[in-house]
Amino acid sequence: MADANPSQTFAAGPPRVLVAGATGFAGALAAHLLWRHPRLELTGVTGRSEVGLRLDELYPRYRVPLQIEQLDLDALALDLDTGGRLDAAIVAYPHAAAAPTVAALRELGVRVVDLSADFRLSSRAVYEQWYGSHPRPELLGEAVYGLSELHRARIAEARIVANPGCYPTAAVLGLAPLARAGLIADVVIDAKQGISGAGRTFDETTHLSMAGENILPYRVAAHRHTPEIEEQLGELDPALVDLPIQFQAHLVPLDQGELASCYVTPTRTVAPAELSELYEQAYTDEPFVEVATVPPGTRDVLETNFCRVFAAADPHTGKLIVLSAIDNLWKGTSSQAVQNLNIMFGLPETEGLT
Amino acid sequence: MADANPSQTFAAGPPRVLVAGATGFAGALAAHLLWRHPRLELTGVTGRSEVGLRLDELYPRYRVPLQIEQLDLDALALDLDTGGRLDAAIVAYPHAAAAPTVAALRELGVRVVDLSADFRLSSRAVYEQWYGSHPRPELLGEAVYGLSELHRARIAEARIVANPGCYPTAAVLGLAPLARAGLIADVVIDAKQGISGAGRTFDETTHLSMAGENILPYRVAAHRHTPEIEEQLGELDPALVDLPIQFQAHLVPLDQGELASCYVTPTRTVAPAELSELYEQAYTDEPFVEVATVPPGTRDVLETNFCRVFAAADPHTGKLIVLSAIDNLWKGTSSQAVQNLNIMFGLPETEGLT
Amino acid sequence: MADANPSQTFAAGPPRVLVAGATGFAGALAAHLLWRHPRLELTGVTGRSEVGLRLDELYPRYRVPLQIEQLDLDALALDLDTGGRLDAAIVAYPHAAAAPTVAALRELGVRVVDLSADFRLSSRAVYEQWYGSHPRPELLGEAVYGLSELHRARIAEARIVANPGCYPTAAVLGLAPLARAGLIADVVIDAKQGISGAGRTFDETTHLSMAGENILPYRVAAHRHTPEIEEQLGELDPALVDLPIQFQAHLVPLDQGELASCYVTPTRTVAPAELSELYEQAYTDEPFVEVATVPPGTRDVLETNFCRVFAAADPHTGKLIVLSAIDNLWKGTSSQAVQNLNIMFGLPETEGLT
Amino acid sequence: MADANPSQTFAAGPPRVLVAGATGFAGALAAHLLWRHPRLELTGVTGRSEVGLRLDELYPRYRVPLQIEQLDLDALALDLDTGGRLDAAIVAYPHAAAAPTVAALRELGVRVVDLSADFRLSSRAVYEQWYGSHPRPELLGEAVYGLSELHRARIAEARIVANPGCYPTAAVLGLAPLARAGLIADVVIDAKQGISGAGRTFDETTHLSMAGENILPYRVAAHRHTPEIEEQLGELDPALVDLPIQFQAHLVPLDQGELASCYVTPTRTVAPAELSELYEQAYTDEPFVEVATVPPGTRDVLETNFCRVFAAADPHTGKLIVLSAIDNLWKGTSSQAVQNLNIMFGLPETEGLT
Repeated sequence: MADANPSQTFAAGPPRVLVAGATGFAGALAAHLLWRHPRLELTGVTGRSEVGLRLDELYPRYRVPLQIEQLDLDALALDLDTGGRLDAAIVAYPHAAAAPTVAALRELGVRVVDLSADFRLSSRAVYEQWYGSHPRPELLGEAVYGLSELHRARIAEARIVANPGCYPTAAVLGLAPLARAGLIADVVIDAKQGISGAGRTFDETTHLSMAGENILPYRVAAHRHTPEIEEQLGELDPALVDLPIQFQAHLVPLDQGELASCYVTPTRTVAPAELSELYEQAYTDEPFVEVATVPPGTRDVLETNFCRVFAAADPHTGKLIVLSAIDNLWKGTSSQAVQNLNIMFGLPETEGLT
Repeated sequence: MADANPSQTFAAGPPRVLVAGATGFAGALAAHLLWRHPRLELTGVTGRSEVGLRLDELYPRYRVPLQIEQLDLDALALDLDTGGRLDAAIVAYPHAAAAPTVAALRELGVRVVDLSADFRLSSRAVYEQWYGSHPRPELLGEAVYGLSELHRARIAEARIVANPGCYPTAAVLGLAPLARAGLIADVVIDAKQGISGAGRTFDETTHLSMAGENILPYRVAAHRHTPEIEEQLGELDPALVDLPIQFQAHLVPLDQGELASCYVTPTRTVAPAELSELYEQAYTDEPFVEVATVPPGTRDVLETNFCRVFAAADPHTGKLIVLSAIDNLWKGTSSQAVQNLNIMFGLPETEGLT
Repeated sequence: MADANPSQTFAAGPPRVLVAGATGFAGALAAHLLWRHPRLELTGVTGRSEVGLRLDELYPRYRVPLQIEQLDLDALALDLDTGGRLDAAIVAYPHAAAAPTVAALRELGVRVVDLSADFRLSSRAVYEQWYGSHPRPELLGEAVYGLSELHRARIAEARIVANPGCYPTAAVLGLAPLARAGLIADVVIDAKQGISGAGRTFDETTHLSMAGENILPYRVAAHRHTPEIEEQLGELDPALVDLPIQFQAHLVPLDQGELASCYVTPTRTVAPAELSELYEQAYTDEPFVEVATVPPGTRDVLETNFCRVFAAADPHTGKLIVLSAIDNLWKGTSSQAVQNLNIMFGLPETEGLT
Repeated sequence: MADANPSQTFAAGPPRVLVAGATGFAGALAAHLLWRHPRLELTGVTGRSEVGLRLDELYPRYRVPLQIEQLDLDALALDLDTGGRLDAAIVAYPHAAAAPTVAALRELGVRVVDLSADFRLSSRAVYEQWYGSHPRPELLGEAVYGLSELHRARIAEARIVANPGCYPTAAVLGLAPLARAGLIADVVIDAKQGISGAGRTFDETTHLSMAGENILPYRVAAHRHTPEIEEQLGELDPALVDLPIQFQAHLVPLDQGELASCYVTPTRTVAPAELSELYEQAYTDEPFVEVATVPPGTRDVLETNFCRVFAAADPHTGKLIVLSAIDNLWKGTSSQAVQNLNIMFGLPETEGLT
């Protein structure tokens, strides 16, 4: 069953999708987007807690009237053996917890979009340097990095799609045109994100009376999204394979929104017109990347799957400034997962997302 | 009268201080701080609008029960001639509008702390490159840059103190130990600030429904605080005189708070212990600069005159990260003005500020 | 032409709708909702300012790529005479400014949903007591009050629909079941609303540094939504025709959201079960009114056309508490306008709104 | 020792005060206010968690450089027996947890300001109806209700001061002039509060991504501050002893601030001038109650011990509207505790609070 053709058509109806881990912010939004999706069918939502509640009791605004169940892989296997159908799953577990479930679903022939970090890095060594021991390293080679705009063709065929981190989504979409053109000699990425980035975590970083009226840098010189950005830039420009990226994240007091401010030391002088041309060409056919003519605010992309990019050459310093705005929960996580499902099942990429 | 000894003692009572331009955020806070100051006397508040209102009608929270008046320099001159006394003024006008008033007050023997940018740069050419024509360039040489921690001795004697911009305050306090030690080869400064930084301005950038749930970069590659930072760093390390600084500002949805995240390419490898030592030594005797052992949030310094600095060496990139947090309206503007007045009048530097 | 059958079918394509006054929050959102509506066609957006800009420059998030034009009634008349078609308009002007345009559009046979207060009250005397002179009182009798759930049949036939105020929407939907049952002897309505309720107004009430960290009661004992609520309740229960309603509004620091907390002195004791039954029956078939089993937060209805109502009998006081939550910009204004257009053109009421 | 004269003078230095429970918002702020108080000495801070941390690690902004210790009553007793001195304690524990500690401290001769609800109600029966079994009911008669403005004389002599709830503080100060004048026939109190009112609690009600962009009514028809308000109003007007008060609380997305909107059905018609006169007379000598001439916003009293009250007669309904604003953590809790300590130790009531 694991060998079924992934681009099969669905005479029996729309692709059926499960969300595993729907009680967190990312899983709940994914369930919401699938519930209202015209051509994908949400078959169930599971949680590792809150089992028995309905998802719309936990997230009224999302209005998904399904009961949260425990994921039962044995029952699923039995169901699939007896003619049941589950075409895909979005797995929204923490890293390390995700890999075994992803592997089990893959064994059952269910295609997976994994929201965790478990399959984002191709190198086991790099993963283990940043995250600790990997539960299922043998699958690293098979997973496709799910930055839709960069890996569309491979995503279409993938059994496991590793949905990118939110910071890499913004940063890599912002920097890709420069990397491809070999223009990056060095880069500093300063990223800011709303509190939803911390997820459904209840502590000092999310309490409104502590996170409000605050700007908080965190994981200084140690953010795990760093190697992800490095690997992606290295794929775009081999000269960058060994360039360590300076990446720093900050929490700011809003709910959803993320801005990556990138400061690039270029390999050569880049004229403003060339820079514009580069970005226009890179993204003219992309339905979800907008090249802005004024600096983007994150509100411009709030609750959308858009990434809005602005690039400028600073005549004073000679550096290039790239500003890339996304909604961390949407394009940064859940709506990009749906974009990837659209690609995986041959649907128009914008289906259910505009 | 303009030649009176600036360090005179005040047998006749505490130094008397006027706030000109008290209707804006900075002037109003300055008035509040002076009103509650045990050893400085607030003699009046003036405004270019709202004349006739009481300041506590405009800013109830500050509880300054003085009527806003129009600044009348002729009446002031007459009063001073006939035995009246005004020892100092805080001028909180926009740039270009400030200089003539500062000059006039100086002529009357009133010492001035100017909150505008008019006297912050020593070079007329640099000023005019960023701000346009300077109304009173002949006074540029006389003004002292009012970053209290760096220019204490000269501030004590100054007739005109140019209170620093909020961004330079955070950035230069953060970078000074590195600059003095000749450790900066290059630096990128990414700064974030609350909406009070836009002042009592009513437009798209300050409306809660537009500024809320937003992260907004502004003045890309063109922020006027850049040359101020460059001049100060150049004073600390002559090797930096010609280094163009990459500076980028962002508005984030809070009221008061500012973080400067500085990414330094060092001139040589700096070990973590050396870095700590450098900062500890630089600031151990400073009452208002704290060297933090964890990354500072702006909430740590909210409504205080403190600057909280954190420095780390990134083993991954070899760069140094310096995070510097202030309250943009307090240490970034009005409470630093009071700190400067304390210095100017020989008072303990913390008086009225803790 | 003004006599054309309002329930005509549209062989020539979907109903064509103009938004007049699209530069304000309400008009811009209406344009956004129409732009993405599958069965209504947005033909243009006009503004009394910002003419020549594209609407997506002013409101990037809404992504309506139409140029803002000046409303030219003569050109429109000419166009309609020569075969052009405009079926409806949403007019989003301030009160008093709206009436003449509404009247002119009606003369041209264009059906209007008016977002202003100009046609909400049936009595000219009451209007003029609260708003001043009425520009077109002769049309008061013709306009239908556009609270979709209460006046569906008349809205379907109306030429002028007076879209309700946001507070009356929440309050009347909350209180209607009690009013119809003759259970209201007296009522106090305490309403809270986000800053978007103030619209695209730039002043002290909307500046984040003043509106943030604030709870601000306004128009004490004088809010113009009061007579609107009174008229609607009086229609539901003639015994209430002369009951003056205590209504008080407050601004709280969020963007979109509104809660009406209603405290009812009942005409007789009401048991909890009877109360539940009353609300369940009233709203069981309504697609956009939800009877909640726990007190609703405004986040539950954020960016939706839902009104979420909760009713409880307080055994301690004998009073009834009704909590009614809406998004003031959506169900309180613009999405209710689209709901009314759906009704007016015989479309499914939820079309384009879920 | 428990019989020592509570109004003793302190030849040995300023009164020495302990904060028990300093890790919560209320206790931490109390410690901050005592630390900077010129005439009270903070001798220590204790916590039921976080022992060993310094308070300024947990609350950097408050800058109290004391280590959090476990409260050791035996060691305290020994210390007091051997000449040690502890004059007072602020106990910031949850209800039921507070009473035993309050009782033990009282036994040791330490005067207590208790921030919990344990001693606020004089009737054990009423307490147990709302809170459950009372741990130390025999002390109920001895405790004095610490609404400074109402019970100043008894607070001065008290061994146990029950610091009021934040809602009763705002509501009773707002309604007291009407109650004393016998003008209240019925009252509805609708209160709104910032998230700090939920304390250092980490859950759905305090997470910025859930509490933000939300208005949330809670404890409908069941808030425990109700009997406290009823008892206080009953003391002011015996006719109100049996009047059940309608009280409803709401969380709104800010940090500190509280508004009680009170809707009074008066016993007779009250003219505007009489109403003004009543409030002016009631509060003209009160240092911390301001009678406002415009509706107060909570920002007007942010981080102050002020209560700002506004009263209006509604000619439309004949009802009276009273709006009362405080900072829930300051006047609503911790700064009122310090105000009470000032009264208890014969200090000027404003000492350390302006």
